[in-house]
Amino acid sequence: MVEQAHLREVGPRDGLQMVGTILPAERKIDWCRRTVAAGLHRVEVTSFVAPSVVPQFADAAEVARVAAAVLGIEASALAPNLKGAERAIASGVAAVNFVMSASEAHNLANVRRSRTQSLEEFARIVVHRDAVASGRVLLSGCIATSFGCTIAGAVPEADVLEIAERYLAIGADELIIADTVGYANPAQVRGLMSRILSIAGDRPVTCHFHDTRGLGLANVVSALEAGVRCFDTSLAGLGGCPFAPGASGNIDTEDTAYLLESLGFDTGVDIAALLELRRDVESWLPGEQFGGNIASAGLPKTYRPAALAAR
Amino acid sequence: MVEQAHLREVGPRDGLQMVGTILPAERKIDWCRRTVAAGLHRVEVTSFVAPSVVPQFADAAEVARVAAAVLGIEASALAPNLKGAERAIASGVAAVNFVMSASEAHNLANVRRSRTQSLEEFARIVVHRDAVASGRVLLSGCIATSFGCTIAGAVPEADVLEIAERYLAIGADELIIADTVGYANPAQVRGLMSRILSIAGDRPVTCHFHDTRGLGLANVVSALEAGVRCFDTSLAGLGGCPFAPGASGNIDTEDTAYLLESLGFDTGVDIAALLELRRDVESWLPGEQFGGNIASAGLPKTYRPAALAAR
Repeated sequence: MVEQAHLREVGPRDGLQMVGTILPAERKIDWCRRTVAAGLHRVEVTSFVAPSVVPQFADAAEVARVAAAVLGIEASALAPNLKGAERAIASGVAAVNFVMSASEAHNLANVRRSRTQSLEEFARIVVHRDAVASGRVLLSGCIATSFGCTIAGAVPEADVLEIAERYLAIGADELIIADTVGYANPAQVRGLMSRILSIAGDRPVTCHFHDTRGLGLANVVSALEAGVRCFDTSLAGLGGCPFAPGASGNIDTEDTAYLLESLGFDTGVDIAALLELRRDVESWLPGEQFGGNIASAGLPKTYRPAALAAR
Repeated sequence: MVEQAHLREVGPRDGLQMVGTILPAERKIDWCRRTVAAGLHRVEVTSFVAPSVVPQFADAAEVARVAAAVLGIEASALAPNLKGAERAIASGVAAVNFVMSASEAHNLANVRRSRTQSLEEFARIVVHRDAVASGRVLLSGCIATSFGCTIAGAVPEADVLEIAERYLAIGADELIIADTVGYANPAQVRGLMSRILSIAGDRPVTCHFHDTRGLGLANVVSALEAGVRCFDTSLAGLGGCPFAPGASGNIDTEDTAYLLESLGFDTGVDIAALLELRRDVESWLPGEQFGGNIASAGLPKTYRPAALAAR
């Protein structure tokens, strides 16, 4: 019996957040559809932020509505506030990802709220969800800057743990622990994630790592050792954070799938299909910087997916 | 008390092996000198291969002679055969690194010898060293393609362990276990390196990883967990292998130093000084591809060297 690990593709959301090209809705939807066809069922399909803030997501409602209906998809959408969550739930996605930062300064800069105000907003989202979509839409509580902040510097682990506890008490169905600015190191990941997992009990926990300083995949290995089995990744390593200058983006979907399969975890991902999709996404986004190594170096001659290797 | 970990800079050798520019000897020597000034004392300064094979190293004797005399340096040089080792020892370096591959096919392609013939050549080098430089020059036995081979595919762990044992029996003072083509994964690293360390006893063991498929630093973490404390790295991630097409080169010195320090290991390395040197090396090698993340993203605001953080 091969153990499973899961990737959630955040390219159509986190990856597109800072690119120069406004991608047409049909391409975003094609990206989601082909991600699922490549065996990656969890896709963060869009963000319900104000179009005045991120024009890329002016088509959020349309993209979410069509993508949420793709066969086999578990579509999620990001929402920074109640209004965004209302729109996300109305669009038909299976999960809404609410984001706040563990760093007060980052939260103020990013969503213009104190952390207390963000948790109050999340409580309003839970009330709304329970009223209109109970049992149908999951709510994920994401904690950005969980491993440090470009504005505030160090973020006390106690702050992250307290926000996690409050998220769960309010009603989060899942926690997402994010290294928004790429400050995490493997020792820190192992320590924090062990504690988060024991707080979370049977509620799923996802790690969201950026590869800003080259430690992204080393952090994945440490999170795996702590017991984490779900990771946010972005095709071609697209994505960054407006408050993390020089950031090289999310960990790369293809490379992370390769790592997990090499370590014996079945991800269900067809890496060759992802690489084909990647070539198209690259052609859609001229002038962007793409990351990842498998795309240029290829899989090793010795590579076998974990499910086959175990037979 | 902070535990130490050591980097050996292989940029002036492995890094230069495939670049298009023939770097003048004085620049190579400057690179070595400034590496030591940045706190990195072990430097592989050149390769004593035939100039007809790698013209870059036609100046090996001069570079080795001057670099070996740099205050505080522990200079090593690569030698693929007895003749190279004789020249290396005559140049005054402190250590000679002999290379053979665990893969028979790779060894035949790389040095045109069977593995048995390579071990016989190493034995001749030991005899020569004992005759002319006993107690003054250390001999390192490097095992290339220890984690897989682009020609042969999988490399049995038993082959690597057998070569390690034979190296030690013949008289190697140190073992270098190399992932020449970037096939290693963290699980494989932990398994092989634990066994290598128990074979090696008190003789030092160095890991030489390439970041070809993005797992370089994750492999460093696994090797650390197995007990390895010495790593070959290359400034700006320069370097590759003629038999590993698309390879993105050695793990990056700056990023690896950042990783080790973040994990609490004192490397003695001044990362800012390395980044300054890197800018010059980049300007010396126009048209080359450089790797690494710290150079573009910078150190985290929260970064403190391990030796300071422990106070």
